[in-house]
Amino acid sequence: MQLKIRRIPLDTLRENVAVLASNCAALRPEAFQAFKRLEIVHDGHSIIASLDICHDLSVVGPEEIGLAEPAFRRMGLPEGTSVTIAPARRPQSLEYVRTKIIGETLNAHQIEAIIRDIVGYRYSDMEIAAFLVACAGFLTTGELLELTRAMAGAGNTLAWSSPMVVDKHCIGGIPGNRTSMVVVPIVAAHGLTIPKTSSRAITSPAGTADTMEVLARVDLTIEEMRTVVGECNGCLVWGGHVNLSPADDILIGVERPLNLDTREQMVASIMSKKMAAGSTHLVIDIPVGPTAKVRDAHEAMRLRKLFEYVADQVGLHVDVMVTDGAQPVGRGIGPVLEARDVMAVLNNEAHAPTDLREKSLRLAGRIIEGDPAMRGGGGYARARELLDSGEAARRMHRIIDTQGHAPPGPPLGALTTDVLSPADGVVASIDCFRIAQLARLAGAPLDRGAGLDLLKRVGDQVEAGEPLYRIYSAGQSHFDFAIEAARETNGYALGGLSVNGAGK
Amino acid sequence: MQLKIRRIPLDTLRENVAVLASNCAALRPEAFQAFKRLEIVHDGHSIIASLDICHDLSVVGPEEIGLAEPAFRRMGLPEGTSVTIAPARRPQSLEYVRTKIIGETLNAHQIEAIIRDIVGYRYSDMEIAAFLVACAGFLTTGELLELTRAMAGAGNTLAWSSPMVVDKHCIGGIPGNRTSMVVVPIVAAHGLTIPKTSSRAITSPAGTADTMEVLARVDLTIEEMRTVVGECNGCLVWGGHVNLSPADDILIGVERPLNLDTREQMVASIMSKKMAAGSTHLVIDIPVGPTAKVRDAHEAMRLRKLFEYVADQVGLHVDVMVTDGAQPVGRGIGPVLEARDVMAVLNNEAHAPTDLREKSLRLAGRIIEGDPAMRGGGGYARARELLDSGEAARRMHRIIDTQGHAPPGPPLGALTTDVLSPADGVVASIDCFRIAQLARLAGAPLDRGAGLDLLKRVGDQVEAGEPLYRIYSAGQSHFDFAIEAARETNGYALGGLSVNGAGK
Repeated sequence: MQLKIRRIPLDTLRENVAVLASNCAALRPEAFQAFKRLEIVHDGHSIIASLDICHDLSVVGPEEIGLAEPAFRRMGLPEGTSVTIAPARRPQSLEYVRTKIIGETLNAHQIEAIIRDIVGYRYSDMEIAAFLVACAGFLTTGELLELTRAMAGAGNTLAWSSPMVVDKHCIGGIPGNRTSMVVVPIVAAHGLTIPKTSSRAITSPAGTADTMEVLARVDLTIEEMRTVVGECNGCLVWGGHVNLSPADDILIGVERPLNLDTREQMVASIMSKKMAAGSTHLVIDIPVGPTAKVRDAHEAMRLRKLFEYVADQVGLHVDVMVTDGAQPVGRGIGPVLEARDVMAVLNNEAHAPTDLREKSLRLAGRIIEGDPAMRGGGGYARARELLDSGEAARRMHRIIDTQGHAPPGPPLGALTTDVLSPADGVVASIDCFRIAQLARLAGAPLDRGAGLDLLKRVGDQVEAGEPLYRIYSAGQSHFDFAIEAARETNGYALGGLSVNGAGK
Repeated sequence: MQLKIRRIPLDTLRENVAVLASNCAALRPEAFQAFKRLEIVHDGHSIIASLDICHDLSVVGPEEIGLAEPAFRRMGLPEGTSVTIAPARRPQSLEYVRTKIIGETLNAHQIEAIIRDIVGYRYSDMEIAAFLVACAGFLTTGELLELTRAMAGAGNTLAWSSPMVVDKHCIGGIPGNRTSMVVVPIVAAHGLTIPKTSSRAITSPAGTADTMEVLARVDLTIEEMRTVVGECNGCLVWGGHVNLSPADDILIGVERPLNLDTREQMVASIMSKKMAAGSTHLVIDIPVGPTAKVRDAHEAMRLRKLFEYVADQVGLHVDVMVTDGAQPVGRGIGPVLEARDVMAVLNNEAHAPTDLREKSLRLAGRIIEGDPAMRGGGGYARARELLDSGEAARRMHRIIDTQGHAPPGPPLGALTTDVLSPADGVVASIDCFRIAQLARLAGAPLDRGAGLDLLKRVGDQVEAGEPLYRIYSAGQSHFDFAIEAARETNGYALGGLSVNGAGK
């Protein structure tokens, strides 16, 4: 029994979704609904999809099978093509997930099979969630290692001619922390190879790829990326486009809505990306603070050891830096505002945020320190020299030129409002999570000019009615969402006394 | 910013799904996609929905919000009604799920909040999966008890005037095991109150409600159910219609595709239903066999103790019977075929399957044994007397008359084929799981006349070419699925020797 493909203009993200008419000519679709999974076959090629039933013949007729956008794309056939359908054979690897759920430990073969099926879109979102939750409950270091290896091997892998390929990565969670865009030009100007791939924001107000995109093209092919690195020693591109560790992207897409964020998942995510990117030396930034992902030094140490364990096993040099994650870095939160701060630092402008400058110099110094040609202890000074002399800024412009300029910069959001201090006092703390959420509600990163501009930092003296930060939005709904949320909780806490006596 | 409701004719089962146009006038829908969750508000009433984005304005326009069938039904407003949308506030109870995932134990308040939100359709399928997997990993008996209580309290509860309300339940997994339809008329004829609610099949080829529906109406209201029990002492109705422990139905709908089937989930599922149904005395059938849900006596004992623990805590008398689950019960698998077997037993026909008769008598005997008016040890004899005398058959007809006759019986599937023995030998085993799967593929229970008729049982002598069972289907696709699957693995294993010397 054949059914003809019909494209259903629905974006269902990761998940393959097929739609059958309730009076489908080929079979009774309800028979498959409890299992939810259907196999769609054409000429030896097949996909597995979740099934929805449709009661309106104008959407899907009895002799048709509707495929939502991702399924249609992955099936790769024109509308009207005849396909056959069958009950989906449950991927064997789901049996491994089941044993993991009830407490068994998986071996390399089993983990690899799971990752292969996830990357092949043979898991439903529910099944991916089941795997992640089982891993969040308990994962041995051995399993973590095999998971990292399997993820690294499941997509493209890059190889570079230089013997030393450096990289940096922050575990995330600190708004405005755009150090990569300062570190890469410094390190590249020094002469090390730093082919940086970054992510776009998933639930944060900006990823490095989003912010870099304000200045340059970031969706480069692997070949284009090679050209840029060949000419500039470094690049700042979007990792999603070069398909490094696609399993990571899929898993993160399920972890985020579930708010899962375990040490093991962080390590597998980051290390798999770096292995696939061909890095040999990696500096990892772990910000610690009361509203950061890592709350205290003890937790940071456990995470550091896990990074070191996996790095040692896979032969990657890793250097973990624990940094201050007490508040956002820089002033702007959101792509355009962050790009402004980055360029201010690179251009040594007087008002450039000093925390972004200092943190970037420390990270770049640590990376440069790894250069065998450098004299021990000279990394930081070398980084500062490259920044202060304008070398780094020139390198950034070369990178932008080579990657390709972005179209004329999107403006800052036209709708603005200042969030005011309710009282006199000293800023005692700024909630990183809340600030990120507010910038996101304001429309960042999709509206690149949306976000928050922080006007006060921890330790600053404020008077009642003085602005704490400014909200920028491009659209009324998002503006309203952000204002309403800021009215509920604005993310700033005031204390009665200046903590460090600095004031303003 | 208001959007107008548009109905999307998609059945998305449990999950609320909303659809926004990619050029939605109110907001950038991609901003919500990573979180997946959206709140739709009208006049103080709101639902939470997962979000899909649509690229075709003929499906959803920029000033509209599409609601798939379940969301449309739960929103309860006509098409064209204006609603506002907002980022969904994450239900507080999801925080409890998160702590459960990382190994903490939940208290009664937390479990109740989770169940309340699940029943309120405030969880996505992924979130329900996360909760179930976390529970499958580890659940204390205290948590199990609170989960059972919360589930029982989350829907309708029935109360009966008689001080003793008996019930029976099988944990499932054995095809053809339709003992309830024999037990209820026997016990009701004896004079005990047995208001039996049963489920429809989810992934099996028939539930008791499906098989009973061949003979009588089963979608009775609570009031109608009371009338039937008042007149007949018992009934055989579909539990779904009277909304007992709706959380159980939702959780099972996620457990099945994930193939989760822990002891704790079985106990919470069954006990919550029975508590809600107002049962005071319950006999539980645990079939044990190599392809049953419970594989050995040790596992059966652990399950029994768990049932007893929860029953004692909630004040329900429970009597657990461990039965032979080595092979299917009766001959027919699928609603029409099973109804035939049940009526043959009740009518004392010569060819009635003796295993179904004997098992039903044992169960009915155990229930009757609980009647204080009975002399100890007389339960089985009394059950047999009621069956042999035709009392039970008459009671069944009275129940059918009072519930309302089914429309003229659907015929057996017109497409039939015999699955033949590949060799001479003795049937060494029959795989319950495979047999159920084949009957399901053949179209049962949706095609009520589809299924399998088993012609050989364990211990029977067979010759090469002799039929093992007959497949019935109503539609060509399902017929083909079943034949192809049976060709791969037919579920029967032959041995060289007659195990019990019984032969034919």
